[in-house]
Amino acid sequence: MNPQLPDISFFHSLADAAGRETLPRFRSRGELNIGTKPKEGFRFDPVTDADREAERVIRELISDRYPDHSIMGEEFGTTGNGPIQWILDPVDGTRPFLCGIPVWGTLIGLLCDGRATMGMMSQPFTTERFWADGKSAWRNGPQGEHRLATRAGISLDQAIVHTTSPEPIERNPQVRFRQLAERTLMTRYGGECYAMAMLAAGQIDICVEYALQPYDIAALIPIIEQAGGVVSTLSGDRPEGGGNVIACGCPRLHAEVLDVLNG
Amino acid sequence: MNPQLPDISFFHSLADAAGRETLPRFRSRGELNIGTKPKEGFRFDPVTDADREAERVIRELISDRYPDHSIMGEEFGTTGNGPIQWILDPVDGTRPFLCGIPVWGTLIGLLCDGRATMGMMSQPFTTERFWADGKSAWRNGPQGEHRLATRAGISLDQAIVHTTSPEPIERNPQVRFRQLAERTLMTRYGGECYAMAMLAAGQIDICVEYALQPYDIAALIPIIEQAGGVVSTLSGDRPEGGGNVIACGCPRLHAEVLDVLNG
Repeated sequence: MNPQLPDISFFHSLADAAGRETLPRFRSRGELNIGTKPKEGFRFDPVTDADREAERVIRELISDRYPDHSIMGEEFGTTGNGPIQWILDPVDGTRPFLCGIPVWGTLIGLLCDGRATMGMMSQPFTTERFWADGKSAWRNGPQGEHRLATRAGISLDQAIVHTTSPEPIERNPQVRFRQLAERTLMTRYGGECYAMAMLAAGQIDICVEYALQPYDIAALIPIIEQAGGVVSTLSGDRPEGGGNVIACGCPRLHAEVLDVLNG
Repeated sequence: MNPQLPDISFFHSLADAAGRETLPRFRSRGELNIGTKPKEGFRFDPVTDADREAERVIRELISDRYPDHSIMGEEFGTTGNGPIQWILDPVDGTRPFLCGIPVWGTLIGLLCDGRATMGMMSQPFTTERFWADGKSAWRNGPQGEHRLATRAGISLDQAIVHTTSPEPIERNPQVRFRQLAERTLMTRYGGECYAMAMLAAGQIDICVEYALQPYDIAALIPIIEQAGGVVSTLSGDRPEGGGNVIACGCPRLHAEVLDVLNG
């Protein structure tokens, strides 16, 4: 492993710091200073002090410890360059955050030479964390610490599929999500990054998300891959750049899902 | 208050007993003994040992303490009759339960002469409970114990709307959910009973759910009402019988939402 890479304990300290900014603001809607950013396809793309303050403290800690590393974050853009880049989404799922529903998470990803290598998703209300240390993927929380493993060998007709919003599907008739959903066991909505974590945990078999940004997926890629799953763009390319992203519990299911979605 | 009515502490003891059946089975998918029940409009309506065992222990405790009370439960039907009836959904949200996403809950409602009077929603993974004691509504959990209060005075264009699944909306062109959603701030999916609890907590302003059974809503009615909200069928009638159910944070918003949904 690259000697420049941080220990996973540093990710935990970043998640601790972010949680001190996000959790006290969760369900304190009146004081959130809610703003909105322009975003294609959504009338309202909220941003709050929780997003801004959590990213600020994470960036400070990284810059202090690793001044040579690059940082890309949802709220404050990209700083630095070089082979190691942190990718931050301080609150992935600002919408469920505003709704009081704990399926949002703080996403902290690390790219080496453009490849997602380590990552963490932290949900401070449920006290859960999901992470990839470069070799394997883990979760801890109320049920203790366990190694993550996707559910392999599931046939399409027994698979559980998740997507966060039906809106990209309804707006674009070329999106073949319905053709996929009809062939699976059941379809669920609204899970954001929490659904990807549950795919890594073997609960969900297929996650389909449209028009992701790099910071929406970077931290989750190694968690899914190091739990045994596969994640790519709809065209089968590496997913670090975002876009339309397909994650599955095993390679065979992933190939079958891409076939259905690409017609 | 009716002297025959139980104290809210009895509801807590029922939720404790249910949690001992549901929580150990949450995310232990391999051993759940998953079955499916026929249900209109869904290909797969799952039921697990968690549902069955939780309802069994709740029924036993009620029958021991209140042998004269009637009980209606999702899994084991109706027993007894008389003016006081318990309405039980041992796992509301079996789908998110199977997905590992903690937006399911154990619903325990109490009807007096057909009117929902007391109720509890328990989410044992997040250690949260939401309840109505006949006079006021409360929640406890990681953030302490607080009185529930809906968010009043929100205009439709600033409202957050929730529905669990887009499927009833997509299947039936007469459903005017889209016309409503377009006039609100944002739409979220997938929250099940947890979204209704968040409406009572002032986080969500409008919940729309189609084709509910009485046990899907009975426990939630007093929680919403005693937090200041309004809940009715789409035609404006009392919601104890289920059907298409509309819950809102205040009477003015409720009237406006019914107008939009009924065209």
